[in-house]
Formats: sequence, structure tokens, C-alpha cells
Amino acid sequence: MLGNTLKWNGIFLVLLSMLAAAPVLAQSSSELNVIPLPAKAQLGSGVLPIDRGFTIGFIGFHDERLDRAGQRFLVQLHRETGIVFAAAGSQAGVLAPRDAARATLLVTTGRDSKPVQELGEDESYTLEITPSGAKLNAMTALGALRGLQTVLQLVSITPNGFSVPAVLIQDQPRFPWRGLMIDSSRHFMPIPVLKRNLDAMEAVKMNVFHWHLSDNQGFRVESHRFPKLQTDGSDGFFYTQDEIHEVITYARDRGIRVVPEFDMPGHCTAWLAAYPELASGSGPYQIERKWGVFDPAMDPTNEKTYRFLNDFIAEMAKLFPDQYFHIGGDEVNGKEWDANPKVQEFMKSHGLKKNSELQAYFSQRVQELVVKHGKATIGWDEVLIPGVPKTVMIQSWRGAQSLSAAAKQGYRGILSNGYYIDLGWSAARHYEVDPMGGAAADLNADEKQRILGGESTMWSEYVNPENVDSRIWPRNAAIAERFWSPQDTTDVDSMYRRMQAESVRLEWLGLTHRTYQRQMVQRMAGASSTEETASLLTLVEALEPVKDYTREELATEEPTSQTPLVRVVDTVNPESEVSRRFSANVDQFLASSCKDAALVASLRTQLTQWAKNDGMVQAVAQRSSIVKDAVPASAALSQSAELALSALDRINQALPVPDDLKKQQIAALNAFETQAHKSQLTIPARAAFQKLIEAAGSGGPCAPK
Amino acid sequence: MLGNTLKWNGIFLVLLSMLAAAPVLAQSSSELNVIPLPAKAQLGSGVLPIDRGFTIGFIGFHDERLDRAGQRFLVQLHRETGIVFAAAGSQAGVLAPRDAARATLLVTTGRDSKPVQELGEDESYTLEITPSGAKLNAMTALGALRGLQTVLQLVSITPNGFSVPAVLIQDQPRFPWRGLMIDSSRHFMPIPVLKRNLDAMEAVKMNVFHWHLSDNQGFRVESHRFPKLQTDGSDGFFYTQDEIHEVITYARDRGIRVVPEFDMPGHCTAWLAAYPELASGSGPYQIERKWGVFDPAMDPTNEKTYRFLNDFIAEMAKLFPDQYFHIGGDEVNGKEWDANPKVQEFMKSHGLKKNSELQAYFSQRVQELVVKHGKATIGWDEVLIPGVPKTVMIQSWRGAQSLSAAAKQGYRGILSNGYYIDLGWSAARHYEVDPMGGAAADLNADEKQRILGGESTMWSEYVNPENVDSRIWPRNAAIAERFWSPQDTTDVDSMYRRMQAESVRLEWLGLTHRTYQRQMVQRMAGASSTEETASLLTLVEALEPVKDYTREELATEEPTSQTPLVRVVDTVNPESEVSRRFSANVDQFLASSCKDAALVASLRTQLTQWAKNDGMVQAVAQRSSIVKDAVPASAALSQSAELALSALDRINQALPVPDDLKKQQIAALNAFETQAHKSQLTIPARAAFQKLIEAAGSGGPCAPK
Repeated sequence: MLGNTLKWNGIFLVLLSMLAAAPVLAQSSSELNVIPLPAKAQLGSGVLPIDRGFTIGFIGFHDERLDRAGQRFLVQLHRETGIVFAAAGSQAGVLAPRDAARATLLVTTGRDSKPVQELGEDESYTLEITPSGAKLNAMTALGALRGLQTVLQLVSITPNGFSVPAVLIQDQPRFPWRGLMIDSSRHFMPIPVLKRNLDAMEAVKMNVFHWHLSDNQGFRVESHRFPKLQTDGSDGFFYTQDEIHEVITYARDRGIRVVPEFDMPGHCTAWLAAYPELASGSGPYQIERKWGVFDPAMDPTNEKTYRFLNDFIAEMAKLFPDQYFHIGGDEVNGKEWDANPKVQEFMKSHGLKKNSELQAYFSQRVQELVVKHGKATIGWDEVLIPGVPKTVMIQSWRGAQSLSAAAKQGYRGILSNGYYIDLGWSAARHYEVDPMGGAAADLNADEKQRILGGESTMWSEYVNPENVDSRIWPRNAAIAERFWSPQDTTDVDSMYRRMQAESVRLEWLGLTHRTYQRQMVQRMAGASSTEETASLLTLVEALEPVKDYTREELATEEPTSQTPLVRVVDTVNPESEVSRRFSANVDQFLASSCKDAALVASLRTQLTQWAKNDGMVQAVAQRSSIVKDAVPASAALSQSAELALSALDRINQALPVPDDLKKQQIAALNAFETQAHKSQLTIPARAAFQKLIEAAGSGGPCAPK
Repeated sequence: MLGNTLKWNGIFLVLLSMLAAAPVLAQSSSELNVIPLPAKAQLGSGVLPIDRGFTIGFIGFHDERLDRAGQRFLVQLHRETGIVFAAAGSQAGVLAPRDAARATLLVTTGRDSKPVQELGEDESYTLEITPSGAKLNAMTALGALRGLQTVLQLVSITPNGFSVPAVLIQDQPRFPWRGLMIDSSRHFMPIPVLKRNLDAMEAVKMNVFHWHLSDNQGFRVESHRFPKLQTDGSDGFFYTQDEIHEVITYARDRGIRVVPEFDMPGHCTAWLAAYPELASGSGPYQIERKWGVFDPAMDPTNEKTYRFLNDFIAEMAKLFPDQYFHIGGDEVNGKEWDANPKVQEFMKSHGLKKNSELQAYFSQRVQELVVKHGKATIGWDEVLIPGVPKTVMIQSWRGAQSLSAAAKQGYRGILSNGYYIDLGWSAARHYEVDPMGGAAADLNADEKQRILGGESTMWSEYVNPENVDSRIWPRNAAIAERFWSPQDTTDVDSMYRRMQAESVRLEWLGLTHRTYQRQMVQRMAGASSTEETASLLTLVEALEPVKDYTREELATEEPTSQTPLVRVVDTVNPESEVSRRFSANVDQFLASSCKDAALVASLRTQLTQWAKNDGMVQAVAQRSSIVKDAVPASAALSQSAELALSALDRINQALPVPDDLKKQQIAALNAFETQAHKSQLTIPARAAFQKLIEAAGSGGPCAPK
């Protein structure tokens, strides 16, 4: 064992010196089809073919988890390539330790990671691929897991079969906390949904699954101590403790921590439906069906509350082995406290002047219970109040300002503001956000040390098992890169290229983000003709949901947890790849003096398709109640595309265009966008349409000479 | 219980009398979006809306299996509609028996089916849907299961939400044995693959899963008595006994019997790799990697063989509860027997003149063992030899002649010839085959009684978990209709319409027959542009694999169980829906005096797409070794479409066309087809192309006036 470690260190030093000798070119690194991009990479010459003789072997530290990782690697490699490996069967291609040295991919691991994965463990690895073999070296088993994912991403088809390029990679994460939060409360997410998302997290090297397990709309964990939590607070949709063990084991296998969140003292109506005696109000309480911030809150002035929470946290602290325990703490509106004379009296007698001070008192008490049961506390910004111990960690939904203020006061924290993937932003927009950006950029080195990473958050008002993957992936890969790769990894085009490649690979893992759309369209279309169904697909591929919280504002009927998520707004992707490509083509067309005939043809084809699409959609809408509310957006898309098409014609024919007409057309585009909002949809190619209109005639980049 | 049965019988009689009073119109029945088509159906007026208040209740016989069926029904209904049912949670929408009477769908069941499902149990049901509710009545739990599937298929989207039409259905199967065989030996099929196919079988009311568990290429069952079977005969790919229990339970829940097949005395190389002492040859034996008929055969002259088989059958007869036990028996070439002096001596001393007589002796002995262990024997045609008891059942791969000869001799049998779904036939061609067709049509009534149904067979030389669903579905739904619906259900257009609707619904069950193609294309395409990838999709959607056993004949390299199934021939569907629709449009165009402008436009669009498709495919083939071998077919498709396009132009312009030119072009079409065969592909639209060419100019249906 010692010998192996020494040997490993030797290899590591050799590799390091090679990297030091050859300065890494950002260019060659971003050409690698890998996301997140490695810290350092240098392309060599030649390739290592992947054929049916491929084997993998482990030396150094070696255990069942690594064996399983090897199996998983080979299964995934089989799916990616179709190759039936020679050493087939249950031990397919993973060599016994005594034969490991002759493996195509030799993995050398220094030591195991901690039995319960901890924040900040070593995840580094080096990977050296030459035409004759691949060597993956990692200090810990976690590094080995990370490196295996890199190898998988490097596989590509060539004129001579599959191969990986010769490359030298030295990689480690920029941040130790790289998380994805999934809200299992607002819409329940069955175990298979979680598992496939854990698979995808592993693929992009994320290491924290933050599991939002309770909220107004449901309490989702089986408690033996307080069984009414699940019987009366979950509508029957909860995870048994066995299932939770299963998820934790599954996550650990993939180098992912599981941090549970039990939101309190607000966001707790589902608890109160089961145990109204915890409440500040008089009840009765029922599981909440609507979305928003609600009045019910635990009673912070009642010792019964703390006795309950003590027993509850004791049970959950045992169930979830992670060092961290998330107590939520966000968005208490205080109305129940204001209305309760006993609470008011308590505040007076304890010198608490504001509700935030009362919440601070509560947080302090709960945080003590968390510590008592052996955990460290993490909570949303609101838990950060004077006097809270420095061990408490902040998850910032408020943003850089709040996070850096915390860091200045000595608190560690992670950023989630900017990574709210439920808001429908583009990958580029999330990618721009940096945990060290904004106010954090001005922190000193010590303070910066306290910013540990970030988490994307999949709040589940508008997602269910059918469409949730599409709201997480592939955009989450861009966020994963932000958390893993060096800060100067900011080439958006490169990110999109690699993100799309990963998007395809994620399908081999069983993610449904690319298949759900056609299925949902079929539901809408019913027995419509093939052409009509195709028109719906064209529509949903072109549009996006309105962003941020506009959906609520535009809703004509208040949405609830029982509203079917079957409409066009539920089906469109947060980011339309078709529209993104179209917009990029418009930019390229304008940059090339509007002369590229192939581009003109491609733009015309797309615009024509959109322009004439509405007729068929209208026909389906006659037959399908689900499609009806998308009709305004469908008409708006076609009419907008019509305007852009006529602009393209004018550009092509070098016709003059009066400025008034342009203004009129741009006003019309805006009106169409507003019309699309009636369907809670937006036309992402609108800016590109406008560019074409502006470019036509005199004054624009395509002005006739 | 008695009261319920009486009540149920009362309802049944009322329904029967209603059906009798109103003669059923074939037309109205084939308009139902249901496959297999019910025996009798009459559309009423109005619809029953399906909304979130929908509930299901069971009265009469009621048990956990029916409860689970109710849950499954609601899960599937949720997937089909997106509706979140009011009575959400683990008991979603299934009412307790005391509340059942007020259910939207009231299921009344007379009695349970047998604990181990038997051949010929009552599967009938009646279904009465009115605008105010639905009543499903069944004599047995099996009938209830069948009826639930009919209800699910009746759901459709309307301008006012989802609903089912008012209808009165009286339904029962034409044949009691309606099976699908899956070959788990040549390519191993993991449990999830089997489960989703069982789900799909339930959807189309099939009731026998014939599990081909051993063959030359692998022995797939864990045996405790003879563990080398799995350790030395399976490459590690086998089902544990727990997994087999799991599959059997899963199947029973869906009203499906599981009939295991252990093929002997031929098709047994994998057994002999583990236990060479069973062989007629001297070995050593290794698991076979190639396809075909091979020499190894068990030694029918050695008492050890029967002692082994006695113990083996004893174990397997316990593991598989079904009444029937399939002993294979097909394709023994006899070479090992010819070459073995001991075998020759035995034959002489026992007066066995031919190998078929020796096999008869073996079959007789094995059949006695099967009976000894409480089972009835089923085998392929070859087991039918003089003296075999009448309880032995025949599965006919040879065809109607063989099957009806057996029936005449008093043997019961099922038909598989004509349902070999590995041969790439169209659904229409399978649909044409009837178990009572051919020689069977001439049988007398008693003899006809002995023909119990049929089985489609998914031999797995060229399928793996990735593409197997697409080789079974949706075509298997057409075969299921042949086995279930009245013999005069023969409207091919109606069948295709309903089959395609079911194809979409099968996706909600998790079948991958519609998603695999894009994924496989992505593997081929690698980092190609979106347009290039789209061209591959156009190619694979247009073509079909060569039919029957032509693939072997055309192969340049001998395929084995280790050949990756990643090529275009593995990716194309057995039946191209795009080409089928195109061909139908050509027929419609020609039938409408070649004047329908919309049809012309649609034909032109498709032909143009095909004609120009090859350029991009060639570009991808430059980069991808997988695509290379499809280049001849790609070029052939484009060039064929080019010819058809010019014919369409001539038709449109009413140009004369010299007969010589037509002949030349048809010869060219044939040459292109031959060229496509180089890629082991065929151009299914070729006949339609030829029709266009023939129609152009003088003499054709579009001849200029």
C-alpha cells in the first residue's frame, strides 16, 4: 500500500514536471470536447483507439466502489460506442488487480476518500493519454471518479473507429462545493428521476446533491419518530428511509454528498398539517396547493417546538450522514407572529424588537440543536444574524452582496443567486455569474477563501418527472464548469459547443431532456396528422418560456400543484437551441457583409418554416384544448418571422428601406412579443429578427453600396 | 361474493341484449382508436370527460393484483393526459371498495383467475361508457385487466380536454395463446428490457411471454443444481432465480404467462461448454460466437444425459410455474451423431434408422421427464414424431402445412411461421398471416379447435437492448390484433392508423422504439454539424434493412455476437413509416388523376429532401467509420429519388416520355436497389418511385390528355 502510494507520487511528479515544461495553451484546452474544462490540458499527437480489446485496471488503493465505477465506465463506454468488450460479462473489461498493469486505462489511486464524503477532499487527478495507453492518477478515489468522466467525454468517432486523443491533463476543481438543489416538495420527484440526475451530476463533476425535502406543499421523508409528517403532510408522496439510504449510497458511489434541507420556521405548512401544535397560528392547516410565500410559521416562543425539533433533528441527523444539515430559514413573512399575542408578549419580554430578531432567536436555537446532533448548519441568507457562530454556512439566494458581506464577517458561503435554473435563463447568462464576481471580487484573500462554490437550484413549481430533466440539462453543465474550471474559462461559444456534446452523451445515461419534448407534443396533438404534429414541434423548438417570475404574473388562472404541466410553456426548453443557432447564423451573416449565400439559404429556410408554421398549429388547436393557449404565441412567431423574411429579401435585393418602415416593423416585433406573452412564451429569435430589419436598407451593415 | 357474481351476471346479460338489439357496424368499430380491435363495439353518442375528479373502483372479486392494476391504470392515464388526479398520493384515485360504486370507472369482476395463469382462461369483458360514467364487467380478473387497457386506448384529446367516447364493447379473444418470444441467449436482454416489453404486451392484450433462455450463444438462467451452466455458459450474463421470480410476478400482474424454453438436443453449445459430458462429440466446447446451425448436440444414447436432464428439469419446473415447458427441439444437423460410433451402435441396437428417429427417441425421453415433473411439453415442429402423446404441443416455425398436419393427428399447436419479426417484414405482411390460413383453412371444426393461436418471435442475432424495442414495436401490435380480434378484421389502413396511435402510447410505458434512432444517429455523427446529423436521420428514416436472411448473405465480414450493432442497418426501422406514408401518398396521387396540387407539393418536398440528402451523408462518412458502409445506400436513395422527381416533373408538365426512357429508368432503379444491398439496406419507396416513372408520359394513369 505504501509502495503504491510512493509509486503514485512518483508518477504524479513526473506528470507535473511535464506540464510545467510545456505551457498549456488555452486554445488547445478549449478544443477538448470536455465539460467542465480541465484546469490544465495539453494535446499530444495521435490517438488511443478504443476497441473491443479495451480494458481498465486499478492499482494502488482499490475497493468495491472503484470496481463499480470501472463497471459503470465500461457500460457507459459501451453505450457511447456500441463496442462489445472482449472481456465481456459481469466483470466486463475490469481486470483483476494482478493483471491491472496491462490495462488500456490504468487507474492509480493513492487512497480512499472519507467514508462519509467531506467538504474539501482532494478531487484532483492527472490523465496522460498516449497512442499506446492511458494513465489516470489520483490522490484519492474521488479524483479517480472525476478522471474517469473526463476519459468518457474524450471519446469520439473518427474515420477509423472510436478513439481518445493523446493528451496530458492535470485537473482539480476551483471550488470544493459544486451543488445542484432539487426541490422534491412542490412536485415530488421519484427515485429514478433523482438517480439519473445524480448520474448526470457525476458526468459534469458536481459533488453536492442538496435535497429540498420539505416545504409548504409537502413533507417528503418518512419519520419514524413523527410519522404524521409523512402520513398527513405528503399526500402519500414521500421517500422511505430505505429509499433515502439508497439515494445516499448511489450518490456516494458517484462522489456526491447528499445535504438534506428541512425548511423552517417558514415554508412549513406541510409540517403543520401534521403537527399543528408547532404553529404560531391557530390552524387548522392543510397542505398548501398554491405557489408563493405563505403565513404559516413555527412558533419560536414555544419550548414544545424545540423539543419536537430536537427529536426530529436527532432522527434526521442519523439518517443523513453528511456533515452539513440545511435548515432553510428563508422567506418568513411574520404575519402569524404579528397576530399571536403570546408571541408578541414573548418578544417584548425577551427584548426582541423585530420579527427578524425573533427569527434570529429561532435560528440560534435550531442551530444549537443541529450542533448537538453532530452536524454543521447551513441555511439561506436569513439565518445569518448577529451572534450566529462562524461555523454556520450561508447559501445565498440574495446574491454577491449578501454573500460577500457574510464572508467579511467570517462566514463561509456558497452562491445560488444567478444559478436559479427554474427562471429559464440561457446557459450563457448563468455562465456569466461567478461566485467570485460582483462584490466578492473586492474581498481580500482570506475572505475569498470563505466562498466555497455554488449551487444551481431546481425549484419545482413548474417541473415534474416528465420535464424536469430539460430544466436542469444541459444548462447545468455550464454551471458545473463555472464551479470546476479556472475563473478565466469564459469562452461562451466553446462552452455551448461542449455543452451540446455533453447533452447528447447524457442521453446514454438515461436523461430525458432531449426526448420529453416530442412525447409531450404527441400528447397535445392526439390523432393529428404527421404534418400538424411536426408543426407543434417546430413551435416548441422555436420558443421559450417567459423568464424569471413572469409566468405567475401572466397567468390567467392561478397555478397550483395540481395544474397539469402539459401546455406548450411546459414543453418548450428554457433555452431554444434552434433559435440560438439561428441567431448565431444571423450574426455571422451580418458580420460577413451579408454576402454568404449558404447562410442566406439557411436563414431563409428557417424563416420560411416559421412563417408558414402557424396555419397547421391553428388546425391542431381546433382539436386540442391543450394547444389553444399557445395560439397567440404561434401567430406571433409566424408573423415575426414573416417580417424578418421580408427584411432578408430586401437585403438580398439591396432594396432601400425607409427608416419609418423599419421603426414600424420593430414596433410590430415588440407587439408580437407581447402577444406571445399571452401564452406565457417568448420569442428568443426576436433580437435576431430585429437585427435583420435594422440591417436592411440604408444605414445598416447590409446597406446597398 | 355470490351476490356480486349474480349482480355482475345481471349487468352482463343487459349488455349482451343491448348488443344484440343494435347490430354492430364494422365501420364504427374500426373507427375506435383501439388495437386489437374489440370483437364487438358500438359507438354511442357523447363522451365521458376525463378530468382530475376521475376515479376507479373495484367491486365483486377484488385483490391486491387488481389494486395494482388500478394504480398502474392511473399512472398511465396521468402520463397520457398529464392530469393530476384529485385523490392523489399512493392510493391515487383508486377508491376503497365501500366507495367504489361512485367511481367514474367501475370495474366489476366475477372471480380471480387461476393462481398460476392457465391456457384458455376466460379473458372476456364488456365495457359500457356513457357521458356519465364507465362500467367494465369481467368474468375473471384477466378480463378486467384486458378491459382496462381498452379504456386507456380510448382516451383522446378534444377541444374540451381529454375524454373517452360513449361506447358499448363486448370483447373476448379469438385465440387463447397470444405470445411473444424473446431470445435472451444470442443477445442478453436485461430485466428492464423485458419488463417494458411485458408492459407493452399487456397494452395489446398478449398473454404469453415465451422466454428463449438457452442456445448455442449462452445459457441464461442461474441453476443451483448445475451452477456451471451460468458460470461457464453465460459470459456472466444470466438471470438469477430472484430475477426470474421478479419477471414471473411482473408478468402475472399483467395477465401474462411465462413459458421458459430450454432448447435441446441441438442449439446447446453453451450447455456443453459447461458440461461437455452431455455431448455427442468429444469437445472441448466453447460458447458459440457466430450465428447459424451448429454441430454440437446432446448425446441421446447416454443415460447420464437423462439423469442430468431429470435433475435440471426438476429444478426449472419449480422455478417456472407455468403449465407448459418448452424443450425446443429444432435444427439438429446430426453431424455429431453421425461421427460418434457409440451413437451409431445405439441406433443400430435400437432399430433407429435415421437421425430424426434418434431425435424422436430423445424427445420422447425428455417429454417423459417433463411430464414427471408436472408439466406439459411444447416444442418446435421437430418434436412431433410418431408416438408422441397428444398432450405435446407444437410451435410451428415451419408453417401452416406442418401445423395443420399436426392438428389432423390430434396435436394442438400455435403458429410462429409468418410472425418472425426478426426478418424485417412490414406490419401488413405479418397481419396477412392467419393461424387459420393456408392449409389450416381446410381443417374440420374439431381440428381447428386445436390451433390455439400464435407467437411472434424476436430472435436476437441483430438486436440488443438498444434497438430491440424497435424490432418488436409497433409491428407486434398488428400481430396481437391478428391473435385477438375476429378473423375478418383485415382493414390494413385501419390497422396502420391504430398501430401508429398505439406506437405513441407505448412511449409513455417507457418503450424506446421511437427514441433509439436519434440516439444511434448521434453516435454515428459524433461532432458533425446539426445539418449533417439531420441528413443521417433522413437516411435512416427512409430505409429498411434487407429482409429475411439476406443480411447474412450480403455480409462481407461474418457477424458474431461481438459485432457492435451500431451501423445504419441496425438503426433503420424494419418498416419505414416515412416511406410507407410517401408510398401511400403516391397511390393517392395517382388515384386522383395526378391532379392534387397539395399532394404534388408534398411528394416534391419529400423527393427533394431525399435527392439532395446524400451530399451531407457523404460528408459525415468522411469522419465516421460507422457511416462509411451506408454510403452506397445513401447514394442509391438520392439517385432513385432524383429519377422519381424528374418523373413527377414530367407528369406535372404533361410531357411525353419515350417508353425506352421509362424502361431505362426502371432498370436504373433496380440497379440502385442492388447498390443499396451493399449496405445491407433496401429502399422501401422504390415501388412508389417506379409507379411515378410508369405513370409519366403516354400510357400511364397520368398520361397527357
